Amino acid sequence: MSTASNRLMVSSGPRPVVGTLIGDPAGIGPEVVVKALASGLVHDESVPVLVGSAAAVERAVDFTGVKARVRIMRSFEMPSDDRGVIDVIDTGALPAGFLPLGEDTEAAGHATAEWLDQLDALARDGSFAATIMGPISTGSLKMAGKLDKVISPTPGESYLVLLTGPLRVAHLTDHMPLRQVIDVITADLVARAIGQVNDAMRSWGITHPRIVVAGLNPHAMGDEERLSIAPGVEQAKAMGIAVEGPVAPDSVFRQCIEGRYDMVLAMFHDQGHIAVKTWGFSGNCVIMMGPPYLHMSVAHGTAYDIVGTGKADSSMMLSAMRICGQLASGQGFGGETK
Amino acid sequence: MSTASNRLMVSSGPRPVVGTLIGDPAGIGPEVVVKALASGLVHDESVPVLVGSAAAVERAVDFTGVKARVRIMRSFEMPSDDRGVIDVIDTGALPAGFLPLGEDTEAAGHATAEWLDQLDALARDGSFAATIMGPISTGSLKMAGKLDKVISPTPGESYLVLLTGPLRVAHLTDHMPLRQVIDVITADLVARAIGQVNDAMRSWGITHPRIVVAGLNPHAMGDEERLSIAPGVEQAKAMGIAVEGPVAPDSVFRQCIEGRYDMVLAMFHDQGHIAVKTWGFSGNCVIMMGPPYLHMSVAHGTAYDIVGTGKADSSMMLSAMRICGQLASGQGFGGETK
Repeated sequence: MSTASNRLMVSSGPRPVVGTLIGDPAGIGPEVVVKALASGLVHDESVPVLVGSAAAVERAVDFTGVKARVRIMRSFEMPSDDRGVIDVIDTGALPAGFLPLGEDTEAAGHATAEWLDQLDALARDGSFAATIMGPISTGSLKMAGKLDKVISPTPGESYLVLLTGPLRVAHLTDHMPLRQVIDVITADLVARAIGQVNDAMRSWGITHPRIVVAGLNPHAMGDEERLSIAPGVEQAKAMGIAVEGPVAPDSVFRQCIEGRYDMVLAMFHDQGHIAVKTWGFSGNCVIMMGPPYLHMSVAHGTAYDIVGTGKADSSMMLSAMRICGQLASGQGFGGETK
Repeated sequence: MSTASNRLMVSSGPRPVVGTLIGDPAGIGPEVVVKALASGLVHDESVPVLVGSAAAVERAVDFTGVKARVRIMRSFEMPSDDRGVIDVIDTGALPAGFLPLGEDTEAAGHATAEWLDQLDALARDGSFAATIMGPISTGSLKMAGKLDKVISPTPGESYLVLLTGPLRVAHLTDHMPLRQVIDVITADLVARAIGQVNDAMRSWGITHPRIVVAGLNPHAMGDEERLSIAPGVEQAKAMGIAVEGPVAPDSVFRQCIEGRYDMVLAMFHDQGHIAVKTWGFSGNCVIMMGPPYLHMSVAHGTAYDIVGTGKADSSMMLSAMRICGQLASGQGFGGETK
């Protein structure tokens, strides 16, 4: 009885409204979103609302054979919060009657850019407690001249966090040449990143985040560790943050998997991405730290080659939706992510 | 019947004599060696002979409760090739009656240095077809002033190869600061490494090695890829080698795990080590490419804290011994490593 009533309490408690952009309408985004919702699990943690082309969502319902009714909203209104209903905010950004499939188009790029703006606006005005971005196409955005809409992590401002089960990695730098990475690492930058990761994790309900910082050089023994990374860690400690490091890059990720830490701060893109993508746990998802609200995404693309075939795997989108609900309601990383 | 007769044929074929240094006598080396031999599997692929302190081996037999008789040889002679007998070449390098346990000593350092020389000499004169180095102690070697005996991989000359199931990674550079790595990468260095890896793999019985080269920068898109790595790959292709790359560092290791390649050439220590150590397959072992014979090792240390407790895990040593036998007899990476 206790399990059933606990579950009921969680389900009936205040659940955050999470807005999910369906991604490029021509890709697998609509399909994985529809499949993830059909699992029936997303509503346990959140009240989901989609943003995008309702026609693309209806086509995805057909493709996937999912039993659900699509409810179209022209602007944000009270979600139906019904597991059998898919709420979609469709402002008509994609021209009526135009529905691309498996290819980049300028029209989809324009629509995606508009949806990204709507998602952001609805999060900033409090309609959405958090947001998820389905797989967009930089090709379509480029054709529309809207590539600037893609948030690119900037050291000191925004960070890409990859989540895959117990392995969670924030990246100090993103798509930056390795030579440049070495020069941008400073104690201040490291301390600031630790502080922002710590604040974010506390806002997600992790009261005592255990953060560890990866070194840069083999065995974390080099000039950069001594001059920049270790002093940055000390600065963060002086602010009262529970942080360790720099730890040898080839040991730190396994230590996180084994539960010793809640989050690794990696120094560069591939340091964290090699660990996450080689470990191979399914259901990876992404947090883009930087916006003043929780903004998540999935680790896969539009997969044009399998659109409409029923092959699209929705496990990453389901992870994103469930974890987003948990974090936005301050429950921390729940059972599924341990 | 076919399986049984194939096995018999393999077992009765010419098996290489493999010399294994027991490692520092005070560490878990003797225990893991004795346990690995007791599996009964090592003789399937090779004729094992140990080099080191017979007293340490006898103590390890006691610690582990293994049923075996230790046969002491003062110099190399015909191995007994009997699964119930452990052949040890003990030249008296460790003073009689002195047997350290769980700590570094100058005497063990001197002895280890002498054993390393013997191992190398017996491989060069053809007594050993291949060699394995148990976990030595750099602490003991340092006390003895013999730290120079530890082979350190040198770009262009020797390479550390980590093996863990289907994930196999050769490293272009080893314990080198990342800043320096970026500057030492040249097309010639990359081409030479590909050539040496290709030659080695062919000598191990892999007739058509599929080698892939990792990039350096995110998505393998940077100056170093364009100016050094890609031209190096092209040079190797012009020599008739089947090699691909540079491939995005965060994808290439998973592609190897999935069987697309036989070996990854990583650009630096942690690129490969993060992949191997995070993936977490047990039974990792190491090839040190450079000596004119197959020289292997294990990925763990002396583990002084658990010596004699029976906790030492021999799976890495067993992998090293089995794979060494397979490679030295030109059988390639066998079933256990797929």
